Amino acid sequence: MVKEDLEAVVRFDQTRPDVYGCAHPKNLLRAIIEDGEHLEKLTNKHIFSSDQFDRDTLLQLFRLAAKYEANPDRFSSSLQGKILISAFYEPSTRTRLSFESAWHRLGGDIMSITDRSTTGIAKGESLADVGEMFNNYGDCVVLRDSNEHSVREMMGALRIPIINAGNGTDEHPTQALADLYTILKWRPNLISDDNPDPINICIVGLPSKMRTVRSLIKLFCIFPEMIGRLTIVNDNPDEQMFDEEQREQVEEAGLNVVLRHELDPELPQADVVYINAIAWEGDSFNAYGKVFHLNAASPLKSDAIVLHPLARGEELCTSLDDTSHNWYFAQARGAVFLRQALLTCLVRRAERVLDII
Amino acid sequence: MVKEDLEAVVRFDQTRPDVYGCAHPKNLLRAIIEDGEHLEKLTNKHIFSSDQFDRDTLLQLFRLAAKYEANPDRFSSSLQGKILISAFYEPSTRTRLSFESAWHRLGGDIMSITDRSTTGIAKGESLADVGEMFNNYGDCVVLRDSNEHSVREMMGALRIPIINAGNGTDEHPTQALADLYTILKWRPNLISDDNPDPINICIVGLPSKMRTVRSLIKLFCIFPEMIGRLTIVNDNPDEQMFDEEQREQVEEAGLNVVLRHELDPELPQADVVYINAIAWEGDSFNAYGKVFHLNAASPLKSDAIVLHPLARGEELCTSLDDTSHNWYFAQARGAVFLRQALLTCLVRRAERVLDII
Amino acid sequence: MVKEDLEAVVRFDQTRPDVYGCAHPKNLLRAIIEDGEHLEKLTNKHIFSSDQFDRDTLLQLFRLAAKYEANPDRFSSSLQGKILISAFYEPSTRTRLSFESAWHRLGGDIMSITDRSTTGIAKGESLADVGEMFNNYGDCVVLRDSNEHSVREMMGALRIPIINAGNGTDEHPTQALADLYTILKWRPNLISDDNPDPINICIVGLPSKMRTVRSLIKLFCIFPEMIGRLTIVNDNPDEQMFDEEQREQVEEAGLNVVLRHELDPELPQADVVYINAIAWEGDSFNAYGKVFHLNAASPLKSDAIVLHPLARGEELCTSLDDTSHNWYFAQARGAVFLRQALLTCLVRRAERVLDII
Repeated sequence: MVKEDLEAVVRFDQTRPDVYGCAHPKNLLRAIIEDGEHLEKLTNKHIFSSDQFDRDTLLQLFRLAAKYEANPDRFSSSLQGKILISAFYEPSTRTRLSFESAWHRLGGDIMSITDRSTTGIAKGESLADVGEMFNNYGDCVVLRDSNEHSVREMMGALRIPIINAGNGTDEHPTQALADLYTILKWRPNLISDDNPDPINICIVGLPSKMRTVRSLIKLFCIFPEMIGRLTIVNDNPDEQMFDEEQREQVEEAGLNVVLRHELDPELPQADVVYINAIAWEGDSFNAYGKVFHLNAASPLKSDAIVLHPLARGEELCTSLDDTSHNWYFAQARGAVFLRQALLTCLVRRAERVLDII
Repeated sequence: MVKEDLEAVVRFDQTRPDVYGCAHPKNLLRAIIEDGEHLEKLTNKHIFSSDQFDRDTLLQLFRLAAKYEANPDRFSSSLQGKILISAFYEPSTRTRLSFESAWHRLGGDIMSITDRSTTGIAKGESLADVGEMFNNYGDCVVLRDSNEHSVREMMGALRIPIINAGNGTDEHPTQALADLYTILKWRPNLISDDNPDPINICIVGLPSKMRTVRSLIKLFCIFPEMIGRLTIVNDNPDEQMFDEEQREQVEEAGLNVVLRHELDPELPQADVVYINAIAWEGDSFNAYGKVFHLNAASPLKSDAIVLHPLARGEELCTSLDDTSHNWYFAQARGAVFLRQALLTCLVRRAERVLDII
Repeated sequence: MVKEDLEAVVRFDQTRPDVYGCAHPKNLLRAIIEDGEHLEKLTNKHIFSSDQFDRDTLLQLFRLAAKYEANPDRFSSSLQGKILISAFYEPSTRTRLSFESAWHRLGGDIMSITDRSTTGIAKGESLADVGEMFNNYGDCVVLRDSNEHSVREMMGALRIPIINAGNGTDEHPTQALADLYTILKWRPNLISDDNPDPINICIVGLPSKMRTVRSLIKLFCIFPEMIGRLTIVNDNPDEQMFDEEQREQVEEAGLNVVLRHELDPELPQADVVYINAIAWEGDSFNAYGKVFHLNAASPLKSDAIVLHPLARGEELCTSLDDTSHNWYFAQARGAVFLRQALLTCLVRRAERVLDII
C-alpha cells in the first residue's frame, strides 16, 4: 500500500459524529430533582424483572445515570474495593462488556465466568450452592443464562445482589431501563411536563419471545400517560404477539396497544421505532420479522428516532447510521451509564455520588 | 406475578445465618502469637505439596489468615502492583474465584487463562517455556491441571512462585490448609493447650484418589497429637484406601487410622466429619462412596462439625445447611483468607500486614 | 518424597541468569535523545502495519520502551482509568498476556474476549458494529484474528485506537517492534554511530507466510544502513520466499537480500539469527523449515544472538538457553516494555512519562 493511503487508513477521528443522538443528559438532569430516598428501595434487592420498579425509583435511577453520563470521569472510585462476578452462561460480548466497562470506570474489580462448562454445574452442583459460593467471593453478580430459571434459583441463596442480564426468553430488565432512559433523554418533557404530548411508539418484534421487548413493555406500563399508541408489528399472523400475562398487564395499565403485520404504513405516525429481529431460544437464536427493513428510505417522521438493542442484522440498515434517526448508538452508550447507576445503588455506594445524602 | 410476591422474591438478607459456622477467627488469633520469622521460610518457595510445611509455619499462616478474616477491609492494598497469573487448565470456578477474590481484595491485578486450548501448548510449547514466559508477565502463578506433572515441569523454569491448585489426583495443598484452618478456628485449644483433648476425625472419601483428602491427611501427620482417631470410610472394599507412600506416612507420624466401610456407625464418635464424593481423573470425574449420605437425620454428635471441599452432590444433604453442623460454608469462606495469607507471603508483602517486621 | 528432596524441588531462585541477554536498556537510553514530538504522530492512529512507522517515531518509541524497562516500577499509574479491550479471536496466551501485563503494570483495567464464538459475530453482527460498540466501552483495542481482514473492517468504525496483534498471515507489527528494540538494545551503536558497522541478519523462516517475519522485514527497510546482508533461509525451494509486494519493498529500500536453502553454512557470518517455524493459517498452524535446528553445537559466531518470537519447538534447542546467544528470552521480556511505550502513546498518556512535555 502506498504510504499516503496507509496513513489515511490508520488515521481515525476521536470525535463522535453529531448525528449519533444528541443524547446529552443535561436536559434530563434538569427535568428531575434529585431525591436519593427512592434509590434506597434498591438496597438489598435483586434486579430480576422490570415489574419491580416504580415510577419514582425509575426517575431517580435515570437522573443518576444522567449525572454519570454528564460527568463520565468524575466518579472513578465509586466502586473501589467492590468485586463484580460477571457470569455469562449464555454467550454475550455486548452486554458483558457493557456491565464490565460500567464497573471498571467506577474503580471496581471483576471476575468473569464466560463458559458454563467450566463451572461446578458440570459437576452437578446446584445453583443455590453456586450462589452461596458467590456470597463469599464478590459483592454483586450479573447473570445471563439461556435457562430461564437459573437466576431465580440462585437468588434464593444469595446475600449479595444479582442482576438478571437475560434469562432465556423471559426478561432483560437493564436493557429496558437503558431503552427508556434513552427515550427520556430525547424527550425529557415526557416526565417534566404536567401534561406531556404523548408519543407513539412502534415496536418491530415479538413481545412473547423477545426478552428485551418483554421488559420494555413492562416499563411502558409504569408510564402509560407518555404513550399515545403502542404499535407492535410482526409479520407472522400465526405467531402469538403477547402471552396471556402480558396481555393482561398492558390492558390493566391502560396502554393503547395495536397489532399490525406491515411496517411501512405505521412509520409516518411513529415517534420512536424500536426494532429487533433476534430472539435467543435455548442455545441458538431465531430471527423474527426478517421481512422488515428500516433504512434511510423508510417513511419515518423527520424527527423520529430509531432504537435497537443490538446486535443488528439486515433489519436495520447502515444507511440510517449517519442520519438524525440514529439513536441506537446513543442507546448503547447510555446503557453503560444506566448500569453504573443501578450497580452503584445495589452495592450501597450511592452516597459517594448523590449530592444530598 | 403479583407485585407483593415479586417484592418478596427480589428481596434478600445480607446477614449471614448464625449457624453457618460461628467461625470467628478471634479465638485463633489469641491462641497463636505472631512470629513472622516462620513465614520467611515461604520466600522463594513454590507451594506444591502439603509435605513442605512445618508446624510453626502453618500456625503463622493460620494466624495471618485469621488476621485477614477478622479485618477483611483493612488491608486492601497489600498486593497493589502485583499481578497474578490464574491458570486453570482443568476447569474450575470455585477454586479459581476463591484465589481471584483473595487477590482482588488485597488490591492486586489478575490475568486469567481458563482454556488450555488457547495456550501455546496447542502449538507444542513446553511447560518450561510457558514458565519462562510467566516470569516476564506476572508475580505469582496459580495452576490447576488434570495432568499431574505439569506443575513440576513449570516449576523448573519459574523464578516467581507457583501454587499447585490441584494436579490430577495428586494434591491440592491450599484446600487442605483451608480445611485445617477451619478446624483450628473451631477448636483453637487444639494448638493452644499443652495437652489438648484430641478429636476424632472421620473422612468419607478415598485418600488414594482424592487430592483434597491426600493433602489433608499429610497435614494431619504434622499434628498427630490433635487426633485421637482418624477413620476413613469407603464403601468399596476392593478400592485401595491408601497408596503405599500414604500408608507409610501415616504410620510414621503415629496417626491412629482405621478403615471402615459403613458410615452411620462411625458418626456418633466423630467430632469432625469430612465428606467428599468426587475425584477428577483426567478430563472427567468419578464419584466414589455414593452410597453414603449425610443429612439432618444422621447420627452426628450434637457438636460435631461437617466439612466438604465442595462442589457437593447428594452425599451432603441440604437439610444440614441450617444446622450447627454446617461448617462447610465457613470452610469455603475462610479459604479466601487462608489464600490471602499464603499469597501475601509468597510475593513478599507480609511486611505490609504483620505487626512486627 | 524425602523432605530434603522436596525442599530442593520447591525452592526457586528469583535472579535472572546473566546469560538471558544482557539486555539492559541503559545504553539505548543514552544513544537516543528524548523528543516527544515524534510520538505525537501516534495520536489518533491505529497500529496496523509496520509500514506506518518512520525512523524518528521508531527511535522515540524504543527510547520510551527503554525508559520503562530501566524503571519498571516507577510509572505504575500511567494508564490509570484507561480500559483495554483485549480481543483474541485467534487463540493466544503469549501475546495476550504480554499486552495485558503491560497494561496492568501501568495501572489500567482490562476486559478480555478470548472466544470468538461468544461474540455477536455468532449472531451475524458486522465488525463495524463491533467497533462502534468498543467505542463506548474502552479506550484501546488489541485484536488478533486468523481472518486477515477483520482489523481493517473494525478500524473503519473505531474512534479509539486498535493494535493489530496478528491478522492471519499478514502482519504482527508489535512483535516486529519488539524484535528491533531487542537488536538495538544489543547494539545501540547501530543508531548512535554516524557510520555503524552493519550487521548480518539471518532469518530462518518464510516471509511470505509468517506475519512476524513480514512485519520485521518491513522495519528493516526503514534502517537499511544497519544491515550488511539479510539472508533468508527456507528448506523448500518450491515455496515462494517473498510475495510480490515484499520483493518490491526490499528492493526499493536497497536491502541486500539473499535466499538460501541450508542453514549451517550461513551461521558463521550471521550476527543475528532469527528463527521461527510456525505460521498460523486459518484455524490451525503449519510448520515450515522443520529440518532446521539451532542448538549449542551450531556454528554460530561467538557473539551472535538468536531471536525467536516464541512459542518454539524443535527448531530452537534448549541447549542454547544457557548460552550468551540466548536473546530470545530477553526479546520476550522487552516486548512488554515496548508494548507499554506504544500503548501509552496511543491513549495519549505520554505526558505522564516523558521528561519534556
